Formats: sequence, C-alpha cells, structure tokens
Amino acid sequence: MTVPQSMTAIAIVGKGGPEVLQPATVPVPVAEGSDVLIKVAAAGVNRPDVMQRLGLYPAPKGHSEIPGLEVAGEIVALGPDAHRFKVGDRVMALVNGGGYAEYCLADAGSCIPVHAGISMVEAAALPEGFFTVWHNVFERGGLEPGNWFLVHGGTSGIGTAAIQLATAFGAKVIATAGSQEKCAVCRELGAVRAVDYKTEDFAEVVKAETGGRGVNVILDMIGGDYVERNIRSLADDGRLVNIAFQGGSKVTIDMMRIMLKRLTVTGSTLRIRPADVKAAIARQVEEKAVPLVADGRVKVIIDHTFPLAEAATAHERMDEAHIGKIVLTV
Amino acid sequence: MTVPQSMTAIAIVGKGGPEVLQPATVPVPVAEGSDVLIKVAAAGVNRPDVMQRLGLYPAPKGHSEIPGLEVAGEIVALGPDAHRFKVGDRVMALVNGGGYAEYCLADAGSCIPVHAGISMVEAAALPEGFFTVWHNVFERGGLEPGNWFLVHGGTSGIGTAAIQLATAFGAKVIATAGSQEKCAVCRELGAVRAVDYKTEDFAEVVKAETGGRGVNVILDMIGGDYVERNIRSLADDGRLVNIAFQGGSKVTIDMMRIMLKRLTVTGSTLRIRPADVKAAIARQVEEKAVPLVADGRVKVIIDHTFPLAEAATAHERMDEAHIGKIVLTV
Repeated sequence: MTVPQSMTAIAIVGKGGPEVLQPATVPVPVAEGSDVLIKVAAAGVNRPDVMQRLGLYPAPKGHSEIPGLEVAGEIVALGPDAHRFKVGDRVMALVNGGGYAEYCLADAGSCIPVHAGISMVEAAALPEGFFTVWHNVFERGGLEPGNWFLVHGGTSGIGTAAIQLATAFGAKVIATAGSQEKCAVCRELGAVRAVDYKTEDFAEVVKAETGGRGVNVILDMIGGDYVERNIRSLADDGRLVNIAFQGGSKVTIDMMRIMLKRLTVTGSTLRIRPADVKAAIARQVEEKAVPLVADGRVKVIIDHTFPLAEAATAHERMDEAHIGKIVLTV
Repeated sequence: MTVPQSMTAIAIVGKGGPEVLQPATVPVPVAEGSDVLIKVAAAGVNRPDVMQRLGLYPAPKGHSEIPGLEVAGEIVALGPDAHRFKVGDRVMALVNGGGYAEYCLADAGSCIPVHAGISMVEAAALPEGFFTVWHNVFERGGLEPGNWFLVHGGTSGIGTAAIQLATAFGAKVIATAGSQEKCAVCRELGAVRAVDYKTEDFAEVVKAETGGRGVNVILDMIGGDYVERNIRSLADDGRLVNIAFQGGSKVTIDMMRIMLKRLTVTGSTLRIRPADVKAAIARQVEEKAVPLVADGRVKVIIDHTFPLAEAATAHERMDEAHIGKIVLTV
C-alpha cells in the first residue's frame, strides 16, 4: 500500500466560528514508536473540537493541532513498537487530535478492531463516547446492576451511549434532554424515564421515580446550577461524575450532604490521560461494550454525516438541535 | 456479678453551656439482642458530645439520650445474641450514646478486647478517633504507603490518631494546628511538617513540601474556606474526606479542578452507621491498629481525665486549648 507524502486535512485558521475550519494540504504524519497510521474512512465530531476551534481548549502539548479525537479506517503503516495490528486491519481509534484528515496517527493501544457488523461511520462515532462512558460511569462511578443512573444530555453522543450501556448492564436509567422529541429518543434507547429539562425539574423527577431514595450514579457535563441538584438527587453512597461544565464550574454547594450521604464527587477528562490509561480503557470497551454494538443490542446513534471538506457545516450542525453523533466521511 | 437496678449517669438538662451536664440517677440499661452491658471504667469525651449538649446534634433515633460515644470497662451482662464475649472480659467499645454513666450498652460487634499493655483510660479514648481515622483515611481515602497525607486539627483526638497511624503505615504526614506548641506535638507524633495555621497558609506549605505535586489524601473537619484550599492542595487522583464542618459546610468551589485532577471529594459520619458497618470497622481497627498501641508504636494521647461527676468541667476543658483526648473516669 502506497502512502502519499501529503494529504488533505482540516486546519483551524485563527479561532472563532465554523468558518475557521478550512481544508489544507499538509504532510502525512509518520508512524513512530507504538503508533499506527490509519487511512481515515470516517472521523467523529465532538464538543471538544468545537471548544478547540473557539480557542477555549487548546490541543495538549505533543498532540496534533488538527481537530478530531476519533477515527475509523484501515491501517496503512506501523511504528516499530506497534505489535498487535498489521497493515490492512480495519480499526476504530481514540486519537490525540488529527482525526479531521485523510490519514491519522493512533497509538496501537487505543485501537479496537472493527467487527464485520459495524460500519466505518458507526466505528468512527464510537470511541470518544464509549471510552468516556465506560471509564466514568462503570469504572469511576461504579455503576452496578439494579442501580439507578441519571445522565444529562441524553441525546448527545455520550448520552445515547450512556443510556444504552447502563441499560444493557442492568441499571435503571433516567435521562434529561431539551425537547419532547429528544425525550422520546431517550426512552427508545432504554431510559425508564426521560425529563424535559425545559419543563420539569430533574431533581423532583428523580425523587418521585426512586421513591425518595435518589439515584446511585450521575453522569453530568453541565455543572453550574445542576451541581447542587445533582447532589440532592443522589442516594446514600451515590457518585457524581462530571466530565464537562457547559454551565460553569464555579458553584456553591452544601458539603454537609456529601458527608451525611457519604457521596463521592469526582470527574475526569479523557484527552490528557497517558497512552497506557487509554489503552486500559480501550481493552475494557473492546471486551465489554463493542460486542453489544456488533450484535445490535447497543446502537451508535448517527445524526448526520458530512464529507471531510464540509467540516465547517458539520460544526454548524453541532450548534443546532441534533440527536446522536455527527461524522465526517473521507 | 451483681448488676444494680439504678446508676449514676450524666443527663443533659436543657441545652447550653457545660452546666447543663448534671449527674442523675437513672435505670441501668438491660442487654438485649447482641448487646453487652459494660461496667464503665472510663469514657471518652468527643466534639459531638459538645454539639449534642448545645442542642445542635440530637442523638439519632433509638440511641441513648445520655452523652458519650466511647467507653472502656468490664462486661457484666450479655444479650442472648452477644456471642464473642463473656462476663468479666475487658473491652473498649464505640457506643450509641450512654457513655457518661456507670453502666453502658454496646453492640458486641463494636467491642474490642483491651490488651494487657493498654490502660482503661487509653482504651476509652481510642474507639471514636481510631474508628474514624481507619474508615476515613484508609478505607474511604485509600491512603497508601509513600502517599502524602494532610490532616487538619493535628492535636485533636482524631488528629493525633491520624498522624501516628498514617506515619505507621508509611505515609508522609503534614498536620495543621493552632500554635507552635501544638505544632511541636504534631512533629513528635511523626508529622514531617506541622503548619501553624495562624501564621502560615497550609496550601503554600503543601505546595512547597510536595514539590508542587500536592498531597494524596486530606482528612478535614473544618470545611469553610479550607475546602477550596484543600482542593488546591490535592495531587492528581487525590481524595478529600470531610468528617465535620466546624467552619461551615456551604462553600463555593471550582469543580473544574475536581475534573482535571480526577479528585474524589467525599466524607462520612460514623454515628449514624448501622451496627454491621461499625463492626466491620471494629475488626479492622482491632487487627491493624490496636496492636500498634499495645506495643507502644502508636500512643493514645490523653490531655486530662476528670471524674464522671465532673463532666461539666471536662466540657469546659474541650473549649480550651488542649492536646489529645479528655476522658471521664468512673
């Protein structure tokens, strides 16, 4: 397989609206160490890409300046320490930027083989959401069968993954979303109750649905005035896991509730973790979650696909009401 | 052994200053279920007793209205399901109130045999502090050998236990206290650095001592403006455990730090836990911590003892600068 010297990728020219995303010709990166080089078939679009475009979330040191945190495609070259895979393997991968491109590097540890039953578009839309949910809901949040689980942003990529995976592993899910249509989707995905946050207070719904006891785990990306209501909505020994603060992170809370209910308030962000941590999460996702996608029990919900060159239009779509993932195709 | 029908205990007559603690003649309680009846030799005085006296911390439902959360003495009667012990055994116990008395009930699960090398005064001063430290620092906080550990209130009963136990299990301890004299005690007990909070900012000291990385575990009973500084003082993956909020529990914090450093903010309170939980903690304390006291490597620091009838004077002493535990003797 011949790998060209240069390729088309999406550069962030300045910072600002979607229009700063512009196709550019750049060198194809070279696989070193435990890298594999992937000929990208599709790349997922994520909220951090939007933040990066706005100049609010710069790429960590050593990561590609090209946006894009997840891809699917075919391996075309291997670094000397990338042992598991061979040229021609179809993989999905969580990547350190660089996904909006014809070719993208991935650490071999962050790659997962694409099963026959999973399309490249689905595979490209899986890693960021599924890695995030697996680590934060199951590993960090310790969700167990029979637990009550509350997830905000139920129709986001992370939300749709969280509702389905939590349901598949035996939890009872309450999801919040911003419209009746979105609430219907949450219920279709398995939520026993969906809360339209524009018309209902999720804390009241949680109280009623759980007989006053509260939920065991909450996955939140809103923060702001949700934090106090999240804490109020947790059962004894409950866990609140924050993975973003779209509503602000500076909050006033009553810590007495944390002590009296023995709560755990925690959070994490995937992007800055080292390769070995991402690889450990990848193995769990590969073993426990991907088979559920391959056999159709869990779906990767796709909102819309756009050609790579239309990345700006894809970002416009991120700011509109949408359900599931937006994906770029090459 | 003959157990009388009535005994002297300390009643809380109204609520307010130490003077509301008054000796009274009350019936000797009867051991039922898994209870043992202890002829009290000594009873520890704790901060929650003061809060209860002030009317701020009522006894939980089903607990004795008589203050006193820990005792040592000799078993004089057994409930039908109290299997481990026999009449005449010397035990220390965490109790559900009732400690300021000549006789006190304890769940057999919360009792620990008193080794030959431990005095009754020391034994009476051990359970509340050691159970609290064991559960919150080691079980909940996950302190490991080589970790940095910060404890506030270093010369309190809990503080003196925490410094010594953390040091004994291989952690490096930083303790805060309110005078140079108290700081010297913290260092004698094993702290590698003591912080006089009246003249130094503990967050600055932590930063300097840990090379900017922060501590792994913090045990705090202050809350208030310590919370933000605690969060700032934690290393990646660090744990903040609050066991009280003497400086207030309603606080403003930046949750972003919790997410970016993957912190765990948690807490607990021992008094409301069910008997089986207390018994599980008791077994760990008995196995891992009490042997260190018996062989002299960890000391139960006693500030002063007072006869039972002088409980009011003992409470006055709680409000003065003191070091270690205050104990009532019968």
